[in-house]
Amino acid sequence: MKISLGRLAILISILSEKERERMMETGKQEGYRICTGKVGTMNAEKVISAVMTAAKRENLWDAESFREEHALYDATVEALSGICRGQLVLSEVQRTVGLFFTVVRGQMHHTKGDWIAVCLYGTIGAPIKGFEHETIGLGINHI
Amino acid sequence: MKISLGRLAILISILSEKERERMMETGKQEGYRICTGKVGTMNAEKVISAVMTAAKRENLWDAESFREEHALYDATVEALSGICRGQLVLSEVQRTVGLFFTVVRGQMHHTKGDWIAVCLYGTIGAPIKGFEHETIGLGINHI
Amino acid sequence: MKISLGRLAILISILSEKERERMMETGKQEGYRICTGKVGTMNAEKVISAVMTAAKRENLWDAESFREEHALYDATVEALSGICRGQLVLSEVQRTVGLFFTVVRGQMHHTKGDWIAVCLYGTIGAPIKGFEHETIGLGINHI
Amino acid sequence: MKISLGRLAILISILSEKERERMMETGKQEGYRICTGKVGTMNAEKVISAVMTAAKRENLWDAESFREEHALYDATVEALSGICRGQLVLSEVQRTVGLFFTVVRGQMHHTKGDWIAVCLYGTIGAPIKGFEHETIGLGINHI
Amino acid sequence: MKISLGRLAILISILSEKERERMMETGKQEGYRICTGKVGTMNAEKVISAVMTAAKRENLWDAESFREEHALYDATVEALSGICRGQLVLSEVQRTVGLFFTVVRGQMHHTKGDWIAVCLYGTIGAPIKGFEHETIGLGINHI
Amino acid sequence: MKISLGRLAILISILSEKERERMMETGKQEGYRICTGKVGTMNAEKVISAVMTAAKRENLWDAESFREEHALYDATVEALSGICRGQLVLSEVQRTVGLFFTVVRGQMHHTKGDWIAVCLYGTIGAPIKGFEHETIGLGINHI
Repeated sequence: MKISLGRLAILISILSEKERERMMETGKQEGYRICTGKVGTMNAEKVISAVMTAAKRENLWDAESFREEHALYDATVEALSGICRGQLVLSEVQRTVGLFFTVVRGQMHHTKGDWIAVCLYGTIGAPIKGFEHETIGLGINHI
Repeated sequence: MKISLGRLAILISILSEKERERMMETGKQEGYRICTGKVGTMNAEKVISAVMTAAKRENLWDAESFREEHALYDATVEALSGICRGQLVLSEVQRTVGLFFTVVRGQMHHTKGDWIAVCLYGTIGAPIKGFEHETIGLGINHI
Repeated sequence: MKISLGRLAILISILSEKERERMMETGKQEGYRICTGKVGTMNAEKVISAVMTAAKRENLWDAESFREEHALYDATVEALSGICRGQLVLSEVQRTVGLFFTVVRGQMHHTKGDWIAVCLYGTIGAPIKGFEHETIGLGINHI
Repeated sequence: MKISLGRLAILISILSEKERERMMETGKQEGYRICTGKVGTMNAEKVISAVMTAAKRENLWDAESFREEHALYDATVEALSGICRGQLVLSEVQRTVGLFFTVVRGQMHHTKGDWIAVCLYGTIGAPIKGFEHETIGLGINHI
Repeated sequence: MKISLGRLAILISILSEKERERMMETGKQEGYRICTGKVGTMNAEKVISAVMTAAKRENLWDAESFREEHALYDATVEALSGICRGQLVLSEVQRTVGLFFTVVRGQMHHTKGDWIAVCLYGTIGAPIKGFEHETIGLGINHI
Repeated sequence: MKISLGRLAILISILSEKERERMMETGKQEGYRICTGKVGTMNAEKVISAVMTAAKRENLWDAESFREEHALYDATVEALSGICRGQLVLSEVQRTVGLFFTVVRGQMHHTKGDWIAVCLYGTIGAPIKGFEHETIGLGINHI
């Protein structure tokens, strides 16, 4: 059975490096387009721009299309909302994040047209080494 | 290397049934206490009570201790906030969820004292079959 | 010059009955698909279902398509968020609304593919006659 | 020096019964109009209606005036927001409250016209005896 | 029939320049005090200060009165909340706005005392030309 | 009867200087550890760091322990949420605060283990002298 869009984005984000590569291969063979990256910051907007820039570079969305930008932007903000648990602020509440992100584009339940999933996984905490715990966020939108 | 608290809770929540059992075995051997369950509802409070009741039955928290109830409650609400992406409401915005949940209790980075992780994973959408997409939420607290 | 998607949805919602009909004619001639309706309630979910049902009846979205349902749902929740100013709750904070709504589907800035706008306009207040003031909300999404 | 509007509302809410009566006397001599009451509930709207009804019975606001209703309503919702810490929901997140409330109307810093303060103080927690901690909220508005 | 406070603020904000002037004339003849302006920014606070400064310059509120400042401030934040749809942040989520604003002061339903309406209308989107859609927000308060 | 954790934190925050000292003495005799301080700022993060730094200096929490940092951080953010009434932003909405804060650590209802209470009390308003009103926030967590 084909792996689902969201589960694929989550698995790639949380697996160890070696397993991740294998999972990305599997995903691509099933027809998904995938990109990954890392971002460490106290500024919520840097998370958003890191995701969108990486996904543009890998051609996961058409940089000429506001429609596609809008779809990915909303998915990214939804993922970020899971990380921040409600309030879209980081430095304002003295929090810093270190995140691995995965963007996956492809079909969902045999529907027509593509969907896009953004998964953010890593740590959130005080700007003091070790004073942090894990966090995850997932956003999915039609594109 | 020992698997981390949050990653363990996420993996158990998203893996297939067979892999899940193996992962739970691994987790228990590493000293974690784990429980899982399912809940499908349009009422946010039913997600909270399903998680807390299952974790009580499996002795993941001491039902006599407000301290432990408070710790798990906050972790569960944080996980729910990831599912709802900001607003802690479901039926009020015509959303229904079908979730698998995992609660894991144990050590985090060799710190003294236990931490607790709650992971919710499943689908959110309209109350119409197939009109839903995946969602995940994770809450972590000291207990 | 063609009237823009959002302005059209707002104008139809706030004009008097006679002007409204003329504006709807103008909008349709410019290629937009339009539907309108009314809803008075203390339950936020009834606003959402009133909008989605009316728009389905008028074929503004394809009832077989989760993609289109997802697009309209998000636009409706965004409009509702403007009405509630932040918290997606009505009866929980003793507020009642009496709303006229307009859904418009069509092109935005000569982009490819359709967009959908939902405008809610009316009154919000205590459940006491006259103890209410005007409120408006607009949501726009790609569909 | 005259006691300030907010401090008076807080003190009356948190003092023991005997001290409270003395404080209410002091406040009234300084020209404030004051009313108090209790409410225990899982429904946020019941807190709002308890405060507004008590304040109407004691003539702290003019029941014919939407203007005054609007002023007190907003102050009450602000106080409730402090109790709920962000999300205006109680039963939806399995929380119950037991609150003492105080409404004070009068002058603030020698400005012209009255202001109104609503203070809510008590406990919030699970619907299990003893599984609760203290909470406070204060809302202030011009009336 | 007299045009209502909120509808007037909305119409002035969304009409073309020529129609706007006519509408402002009509509003003033009906006894309303009106001011308008523009603001383009990524900082939410600049929207607030632009509205308050313009309204002060046109004497829509008494700059010596905290009471009137408080009334207009709350109405402006409510309007902004409609623009941002929930979270009062712009640059933190990489959004930029280009807004036309209208402030109207006057009577509402023959009640005693004035009310104030703030309408913000324009575009919100990525800081890239054309990657934006329309948005509106309205706040109303007693003053 | 022993004074409760939250009421003690509130009283110390709102009393006059002389009464405050007496109340702190009473609290310490009952076994509580207490620290106080002041912070005036437009940046929410400065409130958080002022509270945490003062409490660290007075040994109310163990600076080596992420567990204790996590407990106090969450209590402080909850208190701040009461001050901001929902949105954890200050300068973004042109608000400035002048706060007195109290942190109290000790037992709650004879439960095992300590709890920590953070109370913030002072004024919030425009950055104009006199254009401000009182505000209070309280956060309580197990530590």
